[in-house]
Amino acid sequence: MRIMIDGHPRDMRAVWCDEGTVRMLDQRLLPHRVEVVGLVDHRQVAKAIRDMTVRGAPAIGVAAAYGMMLAANRGEDLQVAAKELKATRPTAFDLFFAVDHMLSEMEAGADPTDAAEAYADTIVKRCQLIGEHGERLIRDGARIMTHCNAGALATVDYGTALAPIREAWRKGKKLFVYVSETRPRLQGMKLTSFELMNEGIPHAVVPDGASGHFMREGVDLVIVGADRIAANGDFANKIGTYEKAVLANELGVPFYTAAPLSTFDLSIERGEDIPIEYRGEEEVTVVDGVRLAPYGCKALNPGFDVTPRRYLSGIITERGVLKPEEIIMGLRGERL
Amino acid sequence: MRIMIDGHPRDMRAVWCDEGTVRMLDQRLLPHRVEVVGLVDHRQVAKAIRDMTVRGAPAIGVAAAYGMMLAANRGEDLQVAAKELKATRPTAFDLFFAVDHMLSEMEAGADPTDAAEAYADTIVKRCQLIGEHGERLIRDGARIMTHCNAGALATVDYGTALAPIREAWRKGKKLFVYVSETRPRLQGMKLTSFELMNEGIPHAVVPDGASGHFMREGVDLVIVGADRIAANGDFANKIGTYEKAVLANELGVPFYTAAPLSTFDLSIERGEDIPIEYRGEEEVTVVDGVRLAPYGCKALNPGFDVTPRRYLSGIITERGVLKPEEIIMGLRGERL
Repeated sequence: MRIMIDGHPRDMRAVWCDEGTVRMLDQRLLPHRVEVVGLVDHRQVAKAIRDMTVRGAPAIGVAAAYGMMLAANRGEDLQVAAKELKATRPTAFDLFFAVDHMLSEMEAGADPTDAAEAYADTIVKRCQLIGEHGERLIRDGARIMTHCNAGALATVDYGTALAPIREAWRKGKKLFVYVSETRPRLQGMKLTSFELMNEGIPHAVVPDGASGHFMREGVDLVIVGADRIAANGDFANKIGTYEKAVLANELGVPFYTAAPLSTFDLSIERGEDIPIEYRGEEEVTVVDGVRLAPYGCKALNPGFDVTPRRYLSGIITERGVLKPEEIIMGLRGERL
Repeated sequence: MRIMIDGHPRDMRAVWCDEGTVRMLDQRLLPHRVEVVGLVDHRQVAKAIRDMTVRGAPAIGVAAAYGMMLAANRGEDLQVAAKELKATRPTAFDLFFAVDHMLSEMEAGADPTDAAEAYADTIVKRCQLIGEHGERLIRDGARIMTHCNAGALATVDYGTALAPIREAWRKGKKLFVYVSETRPRLQGMKLTSFELMNEGIPHAVVPDGASGHFMREGVDLVIVGADRIAANGDFANKIGTYEKAVLANELGVPFYTAAPLSTFDLSIERGEDIPIEYRGEEEVTVVDGVRLAPYGCKALNPGFDVTPRRYLSGIITERGVLKPEEIIMGLRGERL
């Protein structure tokens, strides 16, 4: 991804490995500060996943793969490390997928660093392919809505939902992107707009509750990411996704999710069975250190919601755009 | 409304007149500071409406009525004062209704202070009746969702959407209220939760985008206020209302708006003709003085959206619960 630093473009990933140290952008400080942290053991990686220094299902997966690499290179117990990494966040499937993938690669004798780097490269490559497949859904002059951040920051590079947008823009299509701000943590306003500004793609942030209003005024396409996709095509994504799916459906606006196959959990039949993370209420009542709600006021803060497959026009993957009903027959049993 | 100040309950209105001075709670400082401002001419009232010291359609109407009283008592040109007051905000109909009502009362020889006090008392009485009629829609143990603040702060006393909730609670019904926070200005989190806490009514604030998630988990009833209701039953209300209406409809959850007849604009046939106020983008990108979006990032900030009447289960008024299609036949030609 291209990031402008002091007026100069720099190409970087959201998570990478540099001479045995795992490095990542501290996403909690964006958009105002671009700061890179270095992590030397898997416990630091687990902490970075838990406190959302790194977030976004595919990027969490890559961070976890690097975490397993650090554990292996330090001679730690890999089963314990796997357990600690998996205990950080419950909803995004890539986390579990990446840890299990690293375990089986290393059992098969792979070098831990090579395996982690290959995992990261595979995810990046898949996002590139998602961009190429999804770009065909975008007409010149399209008005596209997205939610949360499913960009390069969430996936190491390119993005899932943002990959087709990036690709269409690079091909010279005119675009306008409605970015729903994504309360409570505002990943839309803070991260997606940061990525779009760095690329120069025209966009505006809108309050989450204004999404329906703008869809009604005229949105051609909604593209969001996914944290876990069940075998029947239901999927979990950032809270607020379900609402956009219902609204798009009501208004006849095509609604897509974009995700690599590492986000598909075929062991889960239906969306109702996906575990939903509840996060602390201060994420809602306190914004950037400022207490907004009355003291003593309760808040509820589900991190994700589940969108039934019937609202989905399709799933943009590295294999092409799948119909939700194609998942079970097409993918079951396949691995990375 | 009851407000706890230093642990002691105090009964007060959101706007009132005290020996020729118009007083109002500064709603921009709530919930953390309870501060009363005093206004001595209609220009100060116009400023207070414009800068949202006072907000909520019926409360804006009462403030404007007091503004007309101040202009009359100071011997100012009433047509000019009416124009200045009407130019403050475009969407809420009570503003225009109240100013025209005061003009015609004074033309008919009424004392300005008596007319303004009578207007305020009428609105309060109507909200009380809205509470009584709406309370019957609420079962013991109900989970109710509301949006923005359509409480005593928005209406001088009792509220519109909150009046039935207040009434049900006072009658001893068990309740739980989901308060959607209402970005960008967070009137749900800051004002509605303040009112509910002062009354001791159980509730939780939820991010706007989580409303659909909780409706799906189980909400019995959605009640919101209204800023302007067209003759066909379409209505404008705080941005985010339309989304909740669509979601409630999709999920089979009854969806009501509550408003006094002063909010009905029978000169407007359909919702599309209601003027929608766009407000500054800093309301979205800056929260309580903290810049959250990247510098240079654009935001769109419509203050209101329009909900088509087909999503409405009914309109709770001082006359009872009306079906949207009853409006034109039942109310046309009637006045306060």
